[in-house]
Amino acid sequence: MPLRDITLDDIESLAVGAWVLGTGGGGSPYLGLLNMRALYKEGYCVQLMPSDELADDDWIAAVSNMGAPLVGQERLTDSRTIARAVALMEEHTGHKFRGIMSLEIGGGNSIQPLMAAAHLKRPVIDSDMMGRAYPEAQMTSVAVGDLKPCPLTTVDVRGLEAVVESVPTWKWMERVSRKICVEYGSIASTCKAPRTGAEVKKWGIHGTTTKAIAIGQAVREAQRRHEDPIAAILNVEPGKVLFRGKVADVERRATEGFLRGRTRFDGMDEDKGAALEINFQNEWIVAWLDGKPVAMSPDLICVLDSVSGEAVGTETIRYGQRVTVIVLPPPRVFLSPKGLAHVGPRAFGYDIEFKSVFA
Amino acid sequence: MPLRDITLDDIESLAVGAWVLGTGGGGSPYLGLLNMRALYKEGYCVQLMPSDELADDDWIAAVSNMGAPLVGQERLTDSRTIARAVALMEEHTGHKFRGIMSLEIGGGNSIQPLMAAAHLKRPVIDSDMMGRAYPEAQMTSVAVGDLKPCPLTTVDVRGLEAVVESVPTWKWMERVSRKICVEYGSIASTCKAPRTGAEVKKWGIHGTTTKAIAIGQAVREAQRRHEDPIAAILNVEPGKVLFRGKVADVERRATEGFLRGRTRFDGMDEDKGAALEINFQNEWIVAWLDGKPVAMSPDLICVLDSVSGEAVGTETIRYGQRVTVIVLPPPRVFLSPKGLAHVGPRAFGYDIEFKSVFA
Repeated sequence: MPLRDITLDDIESLAVGAWVLGTGGGGSPYLGLLNMRALYKEGYCVQLMPSDELADDDWIAAVSNMGAPLVGQERLTDSRTIARAVALMEEHTGHKFRGIMSLEIGGGNSIQPLMAAAHLKRPVIDSDMMGRAYPEAQMTSVAVGDLKPCPLTTVDVRGLEAVVESVPTWKWMERVSRKICVEYGSIASTCKAPRTGAEVKKWGIHGTTTKAIAIGQAVREAQRRHEDPIAAILNVEPGKVLFRGKVADVERRATEGFLRGRTRFDGMDEDKGAALEINFQNEWIVAWLDGKPVAMSPDLICVLDSVSGEAVGTETIRYGQRVTVIVLPPPRVFLSPKGLAHVGPRAFGYDIEFKSVFA
Repeated sequence: MPLRDITLDDIESLAVGAWVLGTGGGGSPYLGLLNMRALYKEGYCVQLMPSDELADDDWIAAVSNMGAPLVGQERLTDSRTIARAVALMEEHTGHKFRGIMSLEIGGGNSIQPLMAAAHLKRPVIDSDMMGRAYPEAQMTSVAVGDLKPCPLTTVDVRGLEAVVESVPTWKWMERVSRKICVEYGSIASTCKAPRTGAEVKKWGIHGTTTKAIAIGQAVREAQRRHEDPIAAILNVEPGKVLFRGKVADVERRATEGFLRGRTRFDGMDEDKGAALEINFQNEWIVAWLDGKPVAMSPDLICVLDSVSGEAVGTETIRYGQRVTVIVLPPPRVFLSPKGLAHVGPRAFGYDIEFKSVFA
């Protein structure tokens, strides 16, 4: 399949679908969407390229905004900042990038590569490294594959720029880059370690921009027809409904460059009387029904507005919202023992064995 | 004056003299001295070059260890780490350095350029940017001169390497590089922004390696002859004795990449009955005699062992030590209103007007 133009309508759908795949994190796509609307109005257009079009020795930039999603509500997204992170990586490494891909398809980070691609006139690669959103640097398919974690560039709208040039482990990349990000104000535009075409083809999670657009299209189409948007999502993705309820309490703190906390939901309809609690670190990590763990990373826990079907982020969820919690299956790469060591419940500090909703 | 070989005896003197100029900080020179003894035994030799031998378009590396001196007592100095910080800067900028200079002549940082110079086979430039030691990045002659703060490399013995590529201000350089340093474990080998020969000649503080060697020679000579080593220092430097006493109390904490605290001294001899307190942030900053400020940065407050004349560092000072506190005059660049804004008492959070002991 050759390159194709991404239409503005695709991006409207991407914003909705990627927010579902964000599992509460990755930042709201709304500000990225506003940037893309403005860029398309100015005549910019971005192309989508399937990873199998890449040559093995092409170089690919992987981008994301890093930090606490709550801060992204205050410090607005500027498309030039993420483009600068990529340009700095080109200056630093001497590689000329063939295309730009998302670190994580979830949330606003699905739109970051489009913003960089518009300014730098490169295609967006239809793959990412998480198939959702995760909070930490070592929680990627390429880290599970033991690819090189370095270098990484961090850029800030005020002109702060730093390069993490070498680290002994992925966890050290997380530690050092996180501290830089925190000092920038808990948000930074980053270009991750450049990947070759061969690496992307082997370790990328493929077709995820297309998938996010399809989810968003299903939701938007259902909204237009006044049909059930959640049923529409489950029609295009093999997910399960976990819980229906309303938000009873939110405990939230921006700390160490993350947004951490927990949300409690009281059951409605068939879940009446039950209580669900979900812990989050940027993303929804473990869900407890009446005190027992019922869903956990790497399964995708998606909290959706029961009426609109749109995702609710950990930074914006609030008391009284009516929500439906669904679970979607994770990329296979995270289900191996090595994958679970990177993103299973113990990787987040929960001493429980991973049990999939789909097992 | 042409280049000259630095002898191992010079380095023994440098370790003593630079520790006096360290004003309590810059890290103990002892571990650097051990490295140089080993390198000289292996046949290495380093040359000293006066800055007036530099061409205007030469590039010079300025190096230092950054962090909390107390940590430098635990994580031992490896000469290859500082050499790597310089090599990384050459790789990053493409500049080939003509020579290597000290960021600060005070303490162990006087020996860092010698270690890098031995491995990289370049001369050491006989100038620095502080004429003593200071704790923060913006406390230099080149920052007072508004020269460029970027880039900066940070290197760690475990293979951690990061480059701060761009910052809007010197204070931002301090903030970002400090956080990286803290994550490394509160100590990092750094190569500061490369300087041209013209910049070094205009803004460097000159002859300071020679000066530190001369102070150390005076102390060692007096020790050999069983003469008063403190009188010997005041014979080669125009300083004043502030206080003679013994350490009554030390309050010390390693925090935010610094060693902070205060030391209380009870008077002896002619100062009997008086009490001196000195606040420190890595270096001795403000001295209070019976509650009144009597000496302060940028004047050099040097706490010396009353018997040996050797300096006592903020990380090693302990209860019961007999000390003599002397004050030495600072480089002129720090006495202008701009200079005092960078290193006067208010720059350290003390709301008092600078008054020199030498006024």
